Amino acid sequence: MSGTNSERELIAEGPAVILVEPQLGENIGMVARAMANFGLAELRLVKPRDGWPSEKARAAASKADHVIDATKVFDTLEEAIADLNFVYATTARERYGFKPVRSPVTAAETLRAKFKAGEKTGVLFGRERWGLTNEEVALADEIVTFPVNPAFASLNIAQAVLLMSYEWMKTGLDDVAATPFLAVEQRPSTKEQVFGLFEHLEEALDSRGYFHPPAKKPKMVDNLRAVISRRGFTEQEISVFRGVIRSLDRFPRRWSKTTGRVEPPENDDEA
Amino acid sequence: MSGTNSERELIAEGPAVILVEPQLGENIGMVARAMANFGLAELRLVKPRDGWPSEKARAAASKADHVIDATKVFDTLEEAIADLNFVYATTARERYGFKPVRSPVTAAETLRAKFKAGEKTGVLFGRERWGLTNEEVALADEIVTFPVNPAFASLNIAQAVLLMSYEWMKTGLDDVAATPFLAVEQRPSTKEQVFGLFEHLEEALDSRGYFHPPAKKPKMVDNLRAVISRRGFTEQEISVFRGVIRSLDRFPRRWSKTTGRVEPPENDDEA
Repeated sequence: MSGTNSERELIAEGPAVILVEPQLGENIGMVARAMANFGLAELRLVKPRDGWPSEKARAAASKADHVIDATKVFDTLEEAIADLNFVYATTARERYGFKPVRSPVTAAETLRAKFKAGEKTGVLFGRERWGLTNEEVALADEIVTFPVNPAFASLNIAQAVLLMSYEWMKTGLDDVAATPFLAVEQRPSTKEQVFGLFEHLEEALDSRGYFHPPAKKPKMVDNLRAVISRRGFTEQEISVFRGVIRSLDRFPRRWSKTTGRVEPPENDDEA
Repeated sequence: MSGTNSERELIAEGPAVILVEPQLGENIGMVARAMANFGLAELRLVKPRDGWPSEKARAAASKADHVIDATKVFDTLEEAIADLNFVYATTARERYGFKPVRSPVTAAETLRAKFKAGEKTGVLFGRERWGLTNEEVALADEIVTFPVNPAFASLNIAQAVLLMSYEWMKTGLDDVAATPFLAVEQRPSTKEQVFGLFEHLEEALDSRGYFHPPAKKPKMVDNLRAVISRRGFTEQEISVFRGVIRSLDRFPRRWSKTTGRVEPPENDDEA
């Protein structure tokens, strides 16, 4: 699940991520990695406890060097967001206040709309242990909170950044059902191809006395056809099935394509 | 951002998460924590490198004990998924094959539909370093892959489980815009309340000669009203604003409500 590929497009735009008094370098690094995965690149730190730069952060960032190298450090949250137009505060706890509270989906849509309109935006994330203070939340425009298990709400900052970055990325997709790669393209089979399969199989079975007694053959054929075609076939599947029937039909057990004969330890009855 | 609360509803249902040959106990713990946050509870391990149980896993699970305690260990992937009806394989790399490839949103919707229909489902996650083998992917029904930055695709297993669990949780919500708590309810103000604010402010300003020269007063009032009411007021905001005006209007600088007089270090000019 890992790998930086310099030949592909590096997405690096969108809201700033602002960590307020983060304590562990590892967490800062995991935040940078989460951001890079989903195309965010601007990380700001307010008074990181263990200083900056941080080798632990760089190691945990798993090669998100473009985020680590561009990280800016500030003495106060006010300075860290001074140039921004619109800021979200993330919080897991209910806060007494008048600020609108948004889901990550709604917040990401708002951030994308403001990004398209040329506004500078940011998302605040609090300390590992106790998040943001009320005074810090008060500096934001709106609140974003995650839909977690009521009895187990325990997202760390890297996880919260990951989810917010992921929702940001999704708002840039034309279609949330789109995937970066697709299955091998398969064309649905035609009915003629399906009938060819039926006949091939039924002939091979008939020659072995499968349809017994003869009076029951029509009903047995109906059932067989219903079972093997319950899901629609693709052309490739028809081709694979016919290869299977051909092999079972033509060759005895332990037949070697190389030597053209049945191999030891013992000859097969059918050989 | 942390806290287990036993008085609230503990959600524990949905697809099994199957980790194939996970190496680090910490990662298994972070997976359990991610699952618990979003209401998943059934963790299965195929040949965990460092054995099971794992104290490192329990520590990293951050009190997701209900997931850790119920974790089952299997010798083979086939055994681990034997009782399931439908299985996704997660992969970051394109695979040659005919399996449908789904986005997390589509996969989560499919898993939710099957859950509602009573089917048992699961999601496979590969080893830390190199994911799932083609043979393991072949055991799944469909593939799910994440929409990551093309030049920086580096999700670890705990992050991948977090995103999949989060999408699962969202499919159980009536509305993705819903949040677990809301802002303090605010009623939009009536026009009468807005007019009251205007009059209050304008009277206080007028008594200080703000509207100067008098001929410009109508235009100045228009501008002032436009500026302060560009965004609609709520009743609470009107109330806060009127308190502000009252305070500015009535009291001199450094006025103490406690002593009822202007306090040192120096008397204010207006006192």
